[in-house]
Amino acid sequence: MPHDFQITRRIEFSETDMAGIVHYSNYFRFMEAAETAFLRSLGYSIALKRGGLELCLPRVHAECDYSVPLRFEDEIRIHLLVVKKGKRTLTYQFRFERIHPAPSVEVARGKVVLVSAKRQRDGSLKAAPLPKLLADKIHQAPPDLLK
Amino acid sequence: MPHDFQITRRIEFSETDMAGIVHYSNYFRFMEAAETAFLRSLGYSIALKRGGLELCLPRVHAECDYSVPLRFEDEIRIHLLVVKKGKRTLTYQFRFERIHPAPSVEVARGKVVLVSAKRQRDGSLKAAPLPKLLADKIHQAPPDLLK
Amino acid sequence: MPHDFQITRRIEFSETDMAGIVHYSNYFRFMEAAETAFLRSLGYSIALKRGGLELCLPRVHAECDYSVPLRFEDEIRIHLLVVKKGKRTLTYQFRFERIHPAPSVEVARGKVVLVSAKRQRDGSLKAAPLPKLLADKIHQAPPDLLK
Amino acid sequence: MPHDFQITRRIEFSETDMAGIVHYSNYFRFMEAAETAFLRSLGYSIALKRGGLELCLPRVHAECDYSVPLRFEDEIRIHLLVVKKGKRTLTYQFRFERIHPAPSVEVARGKVVLVSAKRQRDGSLKAAPLPKLLADKIHQAPPDLLK
Repeated sequence: MPHDFQITRRIEFSETDMAGIVHYSNYFRFMEAAETAFLRSLGYSIALKRGGLELCLPRVHAECDYSVPLRFEDEIRIHLLVVKKGKRTLTYQFRFERIHPAPSVEVARGKVVLVSAKRQRDGSLKAAPLPKLLADKIHQAPPDLLK
Repeated sequence: MPHDFQITRRIEFSETDMAGIVHYSNYFRFMEAAETAFLRSLGYSIALKRGGLELCLPRVHAECDYSVPLRFEDEIRIHLLVVKKGKRTLTYQFRFERIHPAPSVEVARGKVVLVSAKRQRDGSLKAAPLPKLLADKIHQAPPDLLK
Repeated sequence: MPHDFQITRRIEFSETDMAGIVHYSNYFRFMEAAETAFLRSLGYSIALKRGGLELCLPRVHAECDYSVPLRFEDEIRIHLLVVKKGKRTLTYQFRFERIHPAPSVEVARGKVVLVSAKRQRDGSLKAAPLPKLLADKIHQAPPDLLK
Repeated sequence: MPHDFQITRRIEFSETDMAGIVHYSNYFRFMEAAETAFLRSLGYSIALKRGGLELCLPRVHAECDYSVPLRFEDEIRIHLLVVKKGKRTLTYQFRFERIHPAPSVEVARGKVVLVSAKRQRDGSLKAAPLPKLLADKIHQAPPDLLK
C-alpha cells in the first residue's frame, strides 16, 4: 500500500454553489470517495455491498481547512495518508491539490476519524476491533510525510 | 386526506449552483420531501424506519418542467396531487409555487410514478400490491383539479 | 463528434440512500456530468467559467425512467445522444448502462431539454439562439440510433 | 439577538445513505442552514441575493464531532452560538440535538470559521472587514454558555 494514496477528479457543475465555487460540504464527499478508493485498492469496501451492512466505518470526527476555492471543471488530486491506526479507529489526512488550471497548489486539507462498528440485529451499531485482514494491510504514514 | 396536499420550504444556499439558481436535480428532492410529508400525514412512512426496510416505494419514472428559476431564500409551496392509484403503483403530480417574493407564481411542475415493492431476503426488491391500510387512505384527485 | 457520446463513472457511497440504492435525484446529476463532458469535448463549457456566466443553458424539462436500481461501487456507462437541435433548444437522450457487475444491462433512460439563454445585466436570463460556433458542432443522432 | 439561536428541521430521505443514517457531509449543510437563518434574523443574508454577490462569507474551517447517528424523520434542533467575532472572521459553534424520538440528546457538535470577503471585478474574493452594520448586531456568547 502506498503511504500517499491518490485519486483525481474533476469538479462537476452540481458541486458548485451560487458563490461560483465548490460548496464546502462537498469536500467531505470527496474525502469519502478517496477513502473508498483506498479501501477498494486493499480489497475492501466501506460497506459489504450486496450481503448486508455487517461492517460499517462510521465517522466520529471530520474537519477541513480551506485555503483556495475550487471552481467548475477544476481538476484535483486528493491525497490520503493514514495518520493513525488504532485498535478500533482510523485517522486519515486528506490533502486537496488543484492540478488544473496550473500551477499546482494545495487548496484544502482535511482529517477524518472513524471507528469500526458492527451492525446489531436491531440495526444499531456497536464498536468493534478493525477486522484483522483489513488492519494488517493498513500502515501509518511515516512522520516526515505528515508535515 | 386533502386532494391538494401542501408543504412549504425555503431555498437553502447549498441548493443553488454557480448559475445562481436552484440546481435542477434538487426539485426531485423537494418532491420526495412533499411525498414523505404526505405519507406521514396518513400515518405512514416511505420506509419502515427503525425495523428494517421491508416496504419500499422505488420510483420508476420522474419528470419535471421548469418555467421560472428559483433562487436562494425564495419560499415555495409544493402541492402534491394523486393522479392515479393503481394496484401496485402511485402517480403523483407536484406543482411548485413560489410564494415569496411576491407575486405568487407557478415555477415548475413535476410527476413521479412509484411502485410498491417488498424487500427480499437477499436485499433485492420485488413488486407487491400497495398495503391495503395505505391504499384505503389514498384518493385520486378529481379530474378538474388536474388541469 | 460521436453520435453516441459516452462517459463512465462509479457509484459513490454518498450517492446511495437508506434503501441501499442510488437516490433517484442523482441520475440528473449524472446526466449533467455527461453533458458537460460532451460540451467540453466540443471545446465548450456549460458555463463560461472564469469570466462570468454570460451564456447559460438552463433546463426546461428533465425526466428519467428507472428499470434496475444502482448500488454502491457499481460502474456505469452513460450514453448521450442529441435527439433534437433546435434554434434555441437542445434535447438529449441519456442511457444508463451498468457495466459492472456483469452482465451489462440498461438500468435507466433519461431525457433533458434545455434552452440557450443570455444573462442580462440584472441577473435574469433571456432566451437566445445557440451560439453558431457551438451549434455547428452538434449533430442530431440518426433516427435508427434512437430506438 | 439570542446567544443561543435555534432552528429545527426533520431529516429527509435524501439525506440518508445506505448505512441507514444521515450522511456525515449533510451536517455541514445543516450548519449553513442554521447560519443563514441566523443572519436572516439580523436582517442579513449570506449573499446579497438579487443584486450580485458583492459580500461573501467563505468558510476557512469546518469541523464536526458525531456521537449519535441520525435517521430518517428524526427531528433535530440546531443551536448556533457565536464563539468569536473578529474584525474579519466569525467563529460559530453548532450543537445538534435530536428532539424526536425522545429522549432529547445531543448527537453532534460542529464548528465553522468564516471570513468576510468582497468579490473583485475579476470574480476573485478578497478579505475585508465585516460590514459594521452586521458586526454591530452580532455578540459573542458568554463563556459559560460555551462549555
